[in-house]
Amino acid sequence: MQVTMVHVTVKPEAIQEFIAACRDNHEASIREPGNLRFDVLQDPTLPTHFVLYEAYVGVAEALAHKETTHYQVWRDTVAPMMAEPRRGIPMNGLFPES
Amino acid sequence: MQVTMVHVTVKPEAIQEFIAACRDNHEASIREPGNLRFDVLQDPTLPTHFVLYEAYVGVAEALAHKETTHYQVWRDTVAPMMAEPRRGIPMNGLFPES
Repeated sequence: MQVTMVHVTVKPEAIQEFIAACRDNHEASIREPGNLRFDVLQDPTLPTHFVLYEAYVGVAEALAHKETTHYQVWRDTVAPMMAEPRRGIPMNGLFPES
Repeated sequence: MQVTMVHVTVKPEAIQEFIAACRDNHEASIREPGNLRFDVLQDPTLPTHFVLYEAYVGVAEALAHKETTHYQVWRDTVAPMMAEPRRGIPMNGLFPES
Protein backbone atom coordinates (compact mmCIF):
# COMPACT_ATOMS: atom_id res chain seq x y z
CA MET A 1 0.00 0.00 0.00
CA GLN A 2 1.39 3.35 -1.09
CA VAL A 3 0.15 6.28 1.00
CA THR A 4 0.45 10.02 0.51
CA MET A 5 -0.52 12.38 3.32
CA VAL A 6 -1.15 15.77 1.75
CA HIS A 7 -1.12 18.69 4.19
CA VAL A 8 -3.05 21.72 2.98
CA THR A 9 -3.57 25.07 4.69
CA VAL A 10 -6.20 27.27 3.07
CA LYS A 11 -7.20 30.88 3.51
CA PRO A 12 -9.92 31.21 6.19
CA GLU A 13 -12.49 32.53 3.72
CA ALA A 14 -11.96 29.49 1.46
CA ILE A 15 -12.74 26.72 3.99
CA GLN A 16 -16.23 25.84 2.72
CA GLU A 17 -15.28 26.02 -0.96
CA PHE A 18 -12.25 23.85 -0.29
CA ILE A 19 -14.39 21.23 1.47
CA ALA A 20 -16.79 21.18 -1.51
CA ALA A 21 -13.93 20.70 -3.98
CA CYS A 22 -12.52 17.89 -1.83
CA ARG A 23 -15.91 16.17 -1.71
CA ASP A 24 -15.92 15.96 -5.52
CA ASN A 25 -12.32 14.73 -5.60
CA HIS A 26 -13.06 12.13 -2.91
CA GLU A 27 -16.15 10.79 -4.69
CA ALA A 28 -14.29 10.33 -7.98
CA SER A 29 -10.99 9.12 -6.50
CA ILE A 30 -12.50 6.24 -4.52
CA ARG A 31 -13.72 4.89 -7.88
CA GLU A 32 -10.20 4.78 -9.38
CA PRO A 33 -8.71 1.31 -9.95
CA GLY A 34 -6.29 0.60 -7.13
CA ASN A 35 -7.59 3.23 -4.74
CA LEU A 36 -7.87 2.01 -1.14
CA ARG A 37 -8.58 5.23 0.78
CA PHE A 38 -9.15 8.85 -0.03
CA ASP A 39 -9.95 10.37 3.34
CA VAL A 40 -10.42 14.10 3.78
CA LEU A 41 -9.58 15.27 7.31
CA GLN A 42 -9.90 18.63 9.03
CA ASP A 43 -7.81 19.69 12.02
CA PRO A 44 -10.13 20.51 14.93
CA THR A 45 -7.51 22.82 16.44
CA LEU A 46 -6.87 24.74 13.19
CA PRO A 47 -9.85 24.56 10.79
CA THR A 48 -7.81 25.95 7.88
CA HIS A 49 -5.55 22.87 8.08
CA PHE A 50 -6.57 19.73 6.19
CA VAL A 51 -4.99 16.39 5.45
CA LEU A 52 -5.85 14.29 2.41
CA TYR A 53 -4.99 10.67 3.18
CA GLU A 54 -4.63 8.91 -0.16
CA ALA A 55 -3.82 5.19 -0.34
CA TYR A 56 -3.30 3.08 -3.44
CA VAL A 57 -2.27 -0.51 -4.01
CA GLY A 58 1.04 0.65 -5.50
CA VAL A 59 3.14 3.50 -6.78
CA ALA A 60 1.84 3.23 -10.35
CA GLU A 61 -1.76 3.57 -9.19
CA ALA A 62 -0.86 6.54 -6.96
CA LEU A 63 0.85 8.27 -9.90
CA ALA A 64 -2.11 7.54 -12.19
CA HIS A 65 -4.30 9.60 -9.85
CA LYS A 66 -2.51 12.74 -11.01
CA GLU A 67 -3.47 11.98 -14.62
CA THR A 68 -7.20 11.97 -13.88
CA THR A 69 -9.49 14.81 -14.85
CA HIS A 70 -10.95 15.03 -11.35
CA TYR A 71 -7.50 15.48 -9.80
CA GLN A 72 -6.59 18.19 -12.29
CA VAL A 73 -9.91 19.99 -11.76
CA TRP A 74 -9.36 19.84 -7.99
CA ARG A 75 -5.77 21.10 -8.30
CA ASP A 76 -6.79 24.08 -10.43
CA THR A 77 -9.91 24.84 -8.38
CA VAL A 78 -8.12 24.92 -5.03
CA ALA A 79 -4.91 26.65 -6.19
CA PRO A 80 -6.15 30.17 -5.33
CA MET A 81 -7.45 28.95 -1.95
CA MET A 82 -4.02 27.94 -0.62
CA ALA A 83 -2.48 29.97 2.20
CA GLU A 84 0.85 28.22 1.58
CA PRO A 85 2.14 25.52 -0.80
CA ARG A 86 0.72 22.10 0.03
CA ARG A 87 3.03 19.29 1.17
CA GLY A 88 2.64 15.69 0.05
CA ILE A 89 4.37 13.17 2.32
CA PRO A 90 4.77 9.66 0.84
CA MET A 91 4.70 6.72 3.24
CA ASN A 92 5.06 2.98 2.78
CA GLY A 93 2.08 1.03 4.09
CA LEU A 94 3.20 -2.00 6.13
CA PHE A 95 -0.21 -3.12 7.45
CA PRO A 96 -2.66 -3.96 5.99
CA GLU A 97 -0.33 -5.93 3.77
CA SER A 98 -2.38 -5.57 0.58
CA MET B 1 -15.09 9.37 11.35
CA GLN B 2 -12.63 10.15 14.13
CA VAL B 3 -8.97 9.82 13.10
CA THR B 4 -5.78 9.85 15.13
CA MET B 5 -2.42 10.06 13.36
CA VAL B 6 0.19 8.79 15.80
CA HIS B 7 3.77 9.76 14.95
CA VAL B 8 6.38 7.45 16.45
CA THR B 9 10.17 7.62 16.17
CA VAL B 10 11.97 4.53 17.44
CA LYS B 11 15.59 3.74 18.13
CA PRO B 12 17.30 2.32 15.01
CA GLU B 13 17.96 -1.05 16.63
CA ALA B 14 14.26 -1.43 17.50
CA ILE B 15 12.78 -1.09 13.99
CA GLN B 16 12.02 -4.78 13.39
CA GLU B 17 10.67 -5.39 16.90
CA PHE B 18 8.49 -2.31 16.60
CA ILE B 19 7.05 -3.52 13.28
CA ALA B 20 6.27 -6.92 14.84
CA ALA B 21 4.48 -5.28 17.78
CA CYS B 22 2.49 -3.10 15.40
CA ARG B 23 1.46 -6.12 13.34
CA ASP B 24 -0.14 -7.67 16.43
CA ASN B 25 -1.82 -4.37 17.35
CA HIS B 26 -3.10 -3.94 13.78
CA GLU B 27 -4.55 -7.46 13.57
CA ALA B 28 -6.46 -7.07 16.83
CA SER B 29 -7.49 -3.44 16.35
CA ILE B 30 -9.18 -3.97 12.97
CA ARG B 31 -11.50 -6.42 14.76
CA GLU B 32 -12.68 -3.81 17.30
CA PRO B 33 -16.29 -2.61 16.96
CA GLY B 34 -16.26 0.73 15.22
CA ASN B 35 -12.76 0.48 13.79
CA LEU B 36 -12.49 1.69 10.20
CA ARG B 37 -8.72 1.76 9.60
CA PHE B 38 -5.61 0.85 11.53
CA ASP B 39 -2.85 1.47 9.01
CA VAL B 40 0.80 1.15 9.98
CA LEU B 41 3.07 3.33 7.81
CA GLN B 42 6.83 3.68 7.59
CA ASP B 43 8.61 6.77 6.31
CA PRO B 44 10.80 5.79 3.33
CA THR B 45 13.08 8.78 3.98
CA LEU B 46 13.53 8.02 7.70
CA PRO B 47 12.92 4.34 8.53
CA THR B 48 12.80 5.01 12.28
CA HIS B 49 9.70 7.21 11.73
CA PHE B 50 6.29 5.54 11.65
CA VAL B 51 2.71 6.76 11.53
CA LEU B 52 -0.23 4.79 12.89
CA TYR B 53 -3.38 5.94 11.12
CA GLU B 54 -6.29 4.94 13.35
CA ALA B 55 -9.88 5.67 12.29
CA TYR B 56 -13.04 4.93 14.25
CA VAL B 57 -16.68 5.69 13.66
CA GLY B 58 -16.69 8.11 16.60
CA VAL B 59 -14.87 9.48 19.61
CA ALA B 60 -16.25 6.84 22.00
CA GLU B 61 -14.97 4.01 19.81
CA ALA B 62 -11.56 5.69 19.48
CA LEU B 63 -11.33 6.05 23.26
CA ALA B 64 -12.40 2.44 23.78
CA HIS B 65 -9.32 1.33 21.83
CA LYS B 66 -7.15 2.46 24.74
CA GLU B 67 -9.03 0.15 27.09
CA THR B 68 -8.23 -2.96 25.09
CA THR B 69 -5.63 -5.48 26.17
CA HIS B 70 -3.91 -5.44 22.78
CA TYR B 71 -3.43 -1.65 22.96
CA GLN B 72 -2.02 -1.88 26.49
CA VAL B 73 0.32 -4.72 25.51
CA TRP B 74 1.51 -2.70 22.49
CA ARG B 75 2.02 0.44 24.62
CA ASP B 76 4.10 -1.39 27.22
CA THR B 77 6.04 -3.43 24.64
CA VAL B 78 7.08 -0.45 22.53
CA ALA B 79 7.75 1.99 25.39
CA PRO B 80 11.48 1.15 25.63
CA MET B 81 11.82 1.35 21.82
CA MET B 82 10.88 5.02 21.61
CA ALA B 83 13.57 7.53 20.63
CA GLU B 84 11.24 10.35 21.69
CA PRO B 85 7.68 10.62 23.08
CA ARG B 86 5.07 9.71 20.47
CA ARG B 87 2.59 12.32 19.28
CA GLY B 88 -1.08 11.58 18.61
CA ILE B 89 -2.80 14.11 16.35
CA PRO B 90 -6.62 13.93 16.32
CA MET B 91 -8.41 14.88 13.09
CA ASN B 92 -12.07 15.08 12.12
CA GLY B 93 -12.92 12.90 9.12
CA LEU B 94 -15.11 14.81 6.60
CA PHE B 95 -15.14 12.22 3.80
CA PRO B 96 -16.06 9.42 3.75
CA GLU B 97 -19.07 10.66 5.70
CA SER B 98 -19.61 7.50 7.72
